[in-house]
Amino acid sequence: MSSARKCLTFDGSFRMHRAGHLQSPTLAYETWGELNAARDNAILLFGGLSPSAHAASSEGDMAPGWWEDMIGSGLPIDTDNYFVICVNSLGSCFGSTGPASINPETGKSYRLAFPVLALEDVADTALIVVEHLGIDCLHTVIGCSMGGMSGLAFCVRHPDAVKRFISISSAARAMPFSIAVRSLQREMIRSDPKWRKGKYKQGDPPMTGQRLARKLGMITYRSAEEWAQRFGRERSTDHARIEDLFVAEFSVESYLENRANNFSGAFDPNCYLYLSHASDLFDLAEYGGSLDAGFRKLQLEQALVMGVRTDILFPLDQQRELADGISAVCSDTRLAELNCIRGHDSFLVDMDAFRPVICEFFESCCN
Amino acid sequence: MSSARKCLTFDGSFRMHRAGHLQSPTLAYETWGELNAARDNAILLFGGLSPSAHAASSEGDMAPGWWEDMIGSGLPIDTDNYFVICVNSLGSCFGSTGPASINPETGKSYRLAFPVLALEDVADTALIVVEHLGIDCLHTVIGCSMGGMSGLAFCVRHPDAVKRFISISSAARAMPFSIAVRSLQREMIRSDPKWRKGKYKQGDPPMTGQRLARKLGMITYRSAEEWAQRFGRERSTDHARIEDLFVAEFSVESYLENRANNFSGAFDPNCYLYLSHASDLFDLAEYGGSLDAGFRKLQLEQALVMGVRTDILFPLDQQRELADGISAVCSDTRLAELNCIRGHDSFLVDMDAFRPVICEFFESCCN
Repeated sequence: MSSARKCLTFDGSFRMHRAGHLQSPTLAYETWGELNAARDNAILLFGGLSPSAHAASSEGDMAPGWWEDMIGSGLPIDTDNYFVICVNSLGSCFGSTGPASINPETGKSYRLAFPVLALEDVADTALIVVEHLGIDCLHTVIGCSMGGMSGLAFCVRHPDAVKRFISISSAARAMPFSIAVRSLQREMIRSDPKWRKGKYKQGDPPMTGQRLARKLGMITYRSAEEWAQRFGRERSTDHARIEDLFVAEFSVESYLENRANNFSGAFDPNCYLYLSHASDLFDLAEYGGSLDAGFRKLQLEQALVMGVRTDILFPLDQQRELADGISAVCSDTRLAELNCIRGHDSFLVDMDAFRPVICEFFESCCN
Repeated sequence: MSSARKCLTFDGSFRMHRAGHLQSPTLAYETWGELNAARDNAILLFGGLSPSAHAASSEGDMAPGWWEDMIGSGLPIDTDNYFVICVNSLGSCFGSTGPASINPETGKSYRLAFPVLALEDVADTALIVVEHLGIDCLHTVIGCSMGGMSGLAFCVRHPDAVKRFISISSAARAMPFSIAVRSLQREMIRSDPKWRKGKYKQGDPPMTGQRLARKLGMITYRSAEEWAQRFGRERSTDHARIEDLFVAEFSVESYLENRANNFSGAFDPNCYLYLSHASDLFDLAEYGGSLDAGFRKLQLEQALVMGVRTDILFPLDQQRELADGISAVCSDTRLAELNCIRGHDSFLVDMDAFRPVICEFFESCCN
């Protein structure tokens, strides 16, 4: 563990949104920049399903973070001006309490005894970190992908604690195409005999199921258009072994294999199941009985909704739905529909498209 | 086996397009209508990956076929006027020789000893059936999905044997998004321990892998738009069992489960692998070094290319590529871009959109 990662362990019991509780959960987080005297320059960042709190490098951890080009001195999220906080989501496995953690009440790993996770729990535990840092009201909440839904949960549940919201390639709720994809990913992991109903052996996780799930993930995170340009029908230079009659012939297959192998060992499979399921469950319409009612609970001064034309997981019509809904209660709401070809993942890889829009947002705050 | 299904077993050895041979292969086929005296009213139909030759009911087999509403007396493919032939693709498992068949040279099932299958083999064996029926030149070749590529292979390899071509939701070659999807489906089956490198036990096939592959199939055969309208965030009425913490909560999940279970027992997994792989391999550009060169080998009098706006597996840009390419050598080429919401499968389920276009095609032939 790097010195950049800080941990906050709560006293007492945390009551989960759907049912159950966690005893003394821990939240891992990192921060960049300095909180000003007025304590009004804090930005809270919610990441997607898989990343840790290490969004950017710092003196305590020089390794590049998952949004390295976005956060730092002179960058769009400028740490010369803002105090940036990124929390590893509750339920994840990078320092925060999740299914892979020890349950202090039993002394054993939670595994499937972990209560049903909701993105509301991710939002509410992040608020405890924010309050611990002495911040009453955040300048901005930013959420990417699943984190956009966590951020929306934060804004609707704690409207006094946030002034501005940036949603990036996210949605007000999951629709059935995305639910079907995530449900199938979960089934791939659960179908791997090594999963053993969540009791997989240490050092022998359900790698096959995780690899399959990650490949399906990559198919939905990128776009057909990008791959047509990038790979076409190019053949792989890794010559397939003779027994692999049906695979790794085309470059796109080798690409998926490499990406899946890099990921599968690094993420706890039970944590993945809980976070994926939480993404399906979230629905802003639960706040008042309709999306409109949910949006009306927001008290934002300014909002920005960003999305990408080629995103099939969080498509543009969901970006428009978000922007329309927020603008009903926040006149300073902007929708940025980006013409990136790299699909859902564009916010991680197509910085040239995202940077100027986020820069402009923060410049407009200063006026 | 119904009396509608006919079988033709070839004499001698059939040389496969990529490598290897088959000894005395059998092709199963059905026909509807009557061949006229001039023998110029025959239509050859190539189906997708999964169907049998039973495209429509007949006296010999009253069960509805997979294109029941399209083929028959007074229907768009009118058996009062045309003699319609549908062949079960070589490599499949509904009467034609495939990996599940006995190799007469060894007395054992081929399984993975079956040679690499190409859609060229599907096309060339269909021609043998056509010739056996006494037909020198087909009025029209029709191909749906994978069958559209088999049909294109037929037209480019045997230009004297066909006058007209209808391609339905198909392409001139597979692009990397579709290759990635099919490669992952194959990996799901191959990853199931019960597959046993193709030597699965009779009565104990890799059902888990097949079920996963079918679910991914359904996700790509339908559309996000259809499912948003049809299911929204509706919950399943099948109450999930307690151990199924992560599945079958939403209606779309129950739908996929039902569809996958209906399919998985009915199709041989090795046949699936071969046919899926053949779909990836086909490339019209192999005929002369470029797509343009391939198209120039066609000698069609009339062509129709149909596709659907919401199809992500064979998207509209590939329909335009096909229509543009064919029209360079066949001035009477029409492109029909249909505004169906049911994705790739629309040709099977949205008959009201497809019927009038196909009717119009055959009416224009009579003029």
